[in-house]
Amino acid sequence: MQKSGFLLLMMLFLGFNVVAKNKIDRVEPSFWWTGMKNTELQIMVYGENISELRPEINYPGVQLERSVLVESPNYLFLYLNIDKTANAGTFDINFTRKGKKVLSYNYELKERREGSAQRKGYNTSDVIYLITPDRFANGNPENDNVEGFTEQANRSDLNGRHGGDLEGIINHLDYIDDMGFTALWLNPVMENNMTRTSYHGYAITDFYNTDARYGTNDDYLRMVQEAKKRGIKIIIDMILNHCGSEHWWMSDLPTSDWLNFQDGWKPTTHLRETNVDPYASDYDKKMHADGWFVESMPDLNQRNPLMADYLIYNTIWWIEYADLDGIRMDTYPYPDKDFMAEWTKRVMTEYPHFNMVGEEWSVNPAIVSYWQKGKHNTDGYVSCLPGVFDFPLQEALVKAMNEDDKNWGQGLIRLYSTLADDFLYADPTQLVTFPDNHDMSRFYTQINEDFDLFKMGMAYIAVTRGIPQIYYGTEILMTNPNSDSHGEIRSDFPGGWTGDEVNAFTGQNLTGDAKEAQDFVKTLLNWRKGSKEVHEGYLKHFAPASGSGIYTVFRYTNEKAVMLVMNKNAEKKQIDLTHYKEEVIGSAVSGTNVITGEKVLLGDSSVSVNGRSFLLIEIKL
Amino acid sequence: MQKSGFLLLMMLFLGFNVVAKNKIDRVEPSFWWTGMKNTELQIMVYGENISELRPEINYPGVQLERSVLVESPNYLFLYLNIDKTANAGTFDINFTRKGKKVLSYNYELKERREGSAQRKGYNTSDVIYLITPDRFANGNPENDNVEGFTEQANRSDLNGRHGGDLEGIINHLDYIDDMGFTALWLNPVMENNMTRTSYHGYAITDFYNTDARYGTNDDYLRMVQEAKKRGIKIIIDMILNHCGSEHWWMSDLPTSDWLNFQDGWKPTTHLRETNVDPYASDYDKKMHADGWFVESMPDLNQRNPLMADYLIYNTIWWIEYADLDGIRMDTYPYPDKDFMAEWTKRVMTEYPHFNMVGEEWSVNPAIVSYWQKGKHNTDGYVSCLPGVFDFPLQEALVKAMNEDDKNWGQGLIRLYSTLADDFLYADPTQLVTFPDNHDMSRFYTQINEDFDLFKMGMAYIAVTRGIPQIYYGTEILMTNPNSDSHGEIRSDFPGGWTGDEVNAFTGQNLTGDAKEAQDFVKTLLNWRKGSKEVHEGYLKHFAPASGSGIYTVFRYTNEKAVMLVMNKNAEKKQIDLTHYKEEVIGSAVSGTNVITGEKVLLGDSSVSVNGRSFLLIEIKL
Repeated sequence: MQKSGFLLLMMLFLGFNVVAKNKIDRVEPSFWWTGMKNTELQIMVYGENISELRPEINYPGVQLERSVLVESPNYLFLYLNIDKTANAGTFDINFTRKGKKVLSYNYELKERREGSAQRKGYNTSDVIYLITPDRFANGNPENDNVEGFTEQANRSDLNGRHGGDLEGIINHLDYIDDMGFTALWLNPVMENNMTRTSYHGYAITDFYNTDARYGTNDDYLRMVQEAKKRGIKIIIDMILNHCGSEHWWMSDLPTSDWLNFQDGWKPTTHLRETNVDPYASDYDKKMHADGWFVESMPDLNQRNPLMADYLIYNTIWWIEYADLDGIRMDTYPYPDKDFMAEWTKRVMTEYPHFNMVGEEWSVNPAIVSYWQKGKHNTDGYVSCLPGVFDFPLQEALVKAMNEDDKNWGQGLIRLYSTLADDFLYADPTQLVTFPDNHDMSRFYTQINEDFDLFKMGMAYIAVTRGIPQIYYGTEILMTNPNSDSHGEIRSDFPGGWTGDEVNAFTGQNLTGDAKEAQDFVKTLLNWRKGSKEVHEGYLKHFAPASGSGIYTVFRYTNEKAVMLVMNKNAEKKQIDLTHYKEEVIGSAVSGTNVITGEKVLLGDSSVSVNGRSFLLIEIKL
Repeated sequence: MQKSGFLLLMMLFLGFNVVAKNKIDRVEPSFWWTGMKNTELQIMVYGENISELRPEINYPGVQLERSVLVESPNYLFLYLNIDKTANAGTFDINFTRKGKKVLSYNYELKERREGSAQRKGYNTSDVIYLITPDRFANGNPENDNVEGFTEQANRSDLNGRHGGDLEGIINHLDYIDDMGFTALWLNPVMENNMTRTSYHGYAITDFYNTDARYGTNDDYLRMVQEAKKRGIKIIIDMILNHCGSEHWWMSDLPTSDWLNFQDGWKPTTHLRETNVDPYASDYDKKMHADGWFVESMPDLNQRNPLMADYLIYNTIWWIEYADLDGIRMDTYPYPDKDFMAEWTKRVMTEYPHFNMVGEEWSVNPAIVSYWQKGKHNTDGYVSCLPGVFDFPLQEALVKAMNEDDKNWGQGLIRLYSTLADDFLYADPTQLVTFPDNHDMSRFYTQINEDFDLFKMGMAYIAVTRGIPQIYYGTEILMTNPNSDSHGEIRSDFPGGWTGDEVNAFTGQNLTGDAKEAQDFVKTLLNWRKGSKEVHEGYLKHFAPASGSGIYTVFRYTNEKAVMLVMNKNAEKKQIDLTHYKEEVIGSAVSGTNVITGEKVLLGDSSVSVNGRSFLLIEIKL
């Protein structure tokens, strides 16, 4: 028995009677890897009265540094050091009483994938497809209802489970690939074994296991592999702020400070301003950060270092296990902000070229930019988060489409002004841009089902700086005409269920604007895939002259320019090329229309753009 | 004749015939001072064919470093070095031809006032009274019409000159003092000899002389002295962006690049975003900065170094001459931004403790904060401007008053969120706050003439961080009920003209809410004058709970707290003191109502605040 370095840290040791029964219900993470940069590992062991027993490990290169006991006798938090000399393999963690082994857990240290630490995250060459897995495609009707899971499938219930699953996504990876999407973000697929309304995935009841209604962890891994074969990257959706109220630990919390407001929940104020406000009261900061998102989502206390480590190791486990290309972090400004800084630092230290995007749903770019890596914050806050969602641009896009450009400060000028605000960001190229997402009305609904504006808006998203994200079904003009309830927004993708009349995967019965939209998006995204100018080029734009309804954006390198001219007027307009030639195009005499493939002559002093339309051309310089 | 160090710089020397006539029409500045930190001085000499003559100076410690000739033969720009050894006194600047004196100008170097360089500008202890001089009080009807000035007084014309003048202001300094104002900002009083609509003062036709309809430079100086006797500081209104189209130099511009778009004016786009936008086209930057504000205001080209110096020496001349306490800079984002940085640097180097405030009329605090001294701008732009106007807070205040607090994100939460944005400013204490100004509808009109909200809004302005500025007449509920035309907004102050039925200076016929408002503002400002907590204290605020219509702001030092609780509900509310006690008030059991002088008990767990009202109390800690 290895005794050196073993420290029994009694954080809070409550007296209890000796009981006969001991068992191990959970070990999280259940395996790990050798060769990680951070040689420490926290393992949570859960089982009746497990804390009565003394854990012991005997494996070359592995030391049990400390074992932490907490208020519940049924938890043990082990901290291992796995040094560089440790080889992949398995070893027993023995749990002893008076020197005699009572229980044992066979722990595996796996070998890392080659290049795992240097993995590159998604980047500006990608377009992300966002899927709500329950609503995309039901590939395996066998798992619609699973024993031990309370909520049953009910496709007629807008807020119920509809049966979509990982198999459904795997089956349609070719569609996703053909459309030009190069990355996939699924709403969380971790277990949400809640009584009701858990199809969205944000009420996690097990941070280490895929919800059985979607499949298994092996299915998830298979999806990743199948995606990678097609060059599609995988972005996992994570939540550090809360768990589901039916999480397995809720009936036996490790400590009295495992949750915020553990003795009686209070709602968050949603006042994200408290994170930046130089005058915020402690009370307001607490009510924002510690208040619960909703009653069914208990707020995790990341100021408890055991909880903090639990979440950080969980993140790294998923990256390493599922060979991930990115993380989308839910409710970014709601957890403890110092913890969020620590989380970003530890994840990015382990994977320096990884990518992650945080959801700060504020339309104030000063607040959104606060969280990004490299930002010089006056309060000294240092984050290592590479990217943030561009909620300000989403709002601007919808207003730009809907408003009358004749009004001062309205219409396309919104896009111009929002891009001008990019001086606030440490790196605006890492903003994730989107016309809509799973939490808001469908883009087509937001722009009052105007097909001309749809195409114009999608062209802008494809060309402007950042990494576009498109919600499933937006490419076929899915709407939520009756309400803005989440259940309706997240409708079933046509063709995902056997017997669907319309099948948008095959094109069967997909007609009219929906079909045209799909073809349009496909053309646009497949072109974007190869456009170095859009991926890495400079951006220069020419502001809409007051009331003009015309806005021009260039992306360009020294070799080529991409020009997008938007014309919101009903009439065709002649666009003066003088200043574009002076500053970007130079003496180029023609370009190629990206959508139609036609040649566009630029030798004259102007070029025409149809009414309520746009011109998107590539120009060799 | 002193020849050493004399450099005849022929910038642009156009051939011309020898003419007999030479004269000096203008020398600007017409005198200067010894002992300035910057020992250089530019003097513009204007007179027919003055450039034919050779300027000579012979005075101990003064060197004519260079003389710059320009395209017009009628200008000479002299650069003198006035070193530390130069004594105050007069000397001749001789203009010679073939060694013979043709003309001479007797130039004076005055002694500086003691402590001039170390003068302290206005500060957070001040409340600024903004006056449109033509509309406040007509102290000298003799100067309503002046020979040589085209526009005649016509009080019945909303956009005409009404006869207000410096004498009128001098006559009412006691009123201003009694009201609790401690600083005075007048809209520009420099000459505006324009054909029409020049009462506002922003179309300057002579940068060195007071408009004769207001008085003389001596009158201005007398006003400053009388104000100082009462402890009232003077802030001058300056414009570097443009002059009036009837400026004396317009008929004979020194150079072909004296103005922007000198050959044919184009309007500015007003797109201040171009100053910060990382993607701005050169064209958009030029159209914003070089376009004219309006046709009657030619845009000055500060990239011409002679123009740049002319403007900088003019600023310093006014500070030194009129013993000023501050500058309000008009249209701050419109001139060349590098010049503005240089201007702030040179003025603040000469007067390190001076204060200035720039008008950046944007409600985007990211843009407003860009201009402030100490801001870490990502593009490396360095400004030395101490203060900026808080347009974001002005908009927030009006919305906070008018909107229904039951709507998410509306009502008092606007004030909370706007203060939270203070993390963007290098120094938010130097923001100049205001309920309205001369360019927008009267505050009382903006809040739909609601007297309860008026008092609440004024209390907030008095207590929040920054330096309040109140527009003349706002204290007596002046409105613009018929239109938002500037002429109506800038109505005559009642009592300023002989025969006025109502006299707000004496209180004659001032009745009802107007009288009560005046008393209220007087009480509030005179209290603020002595409140160290408001001048220098910390700020802490408690966010309005969703839909509550309650917002609380504290200003406090270790000795005392000022508590402002605003209640927008129709009903009286009990305000829970628990968290205020925990974080600010401690065990204090009572305070004093600032407005009524009554004792307010704080020993209970709550305190009541009347409906649509506020509680403003001082609490000894």
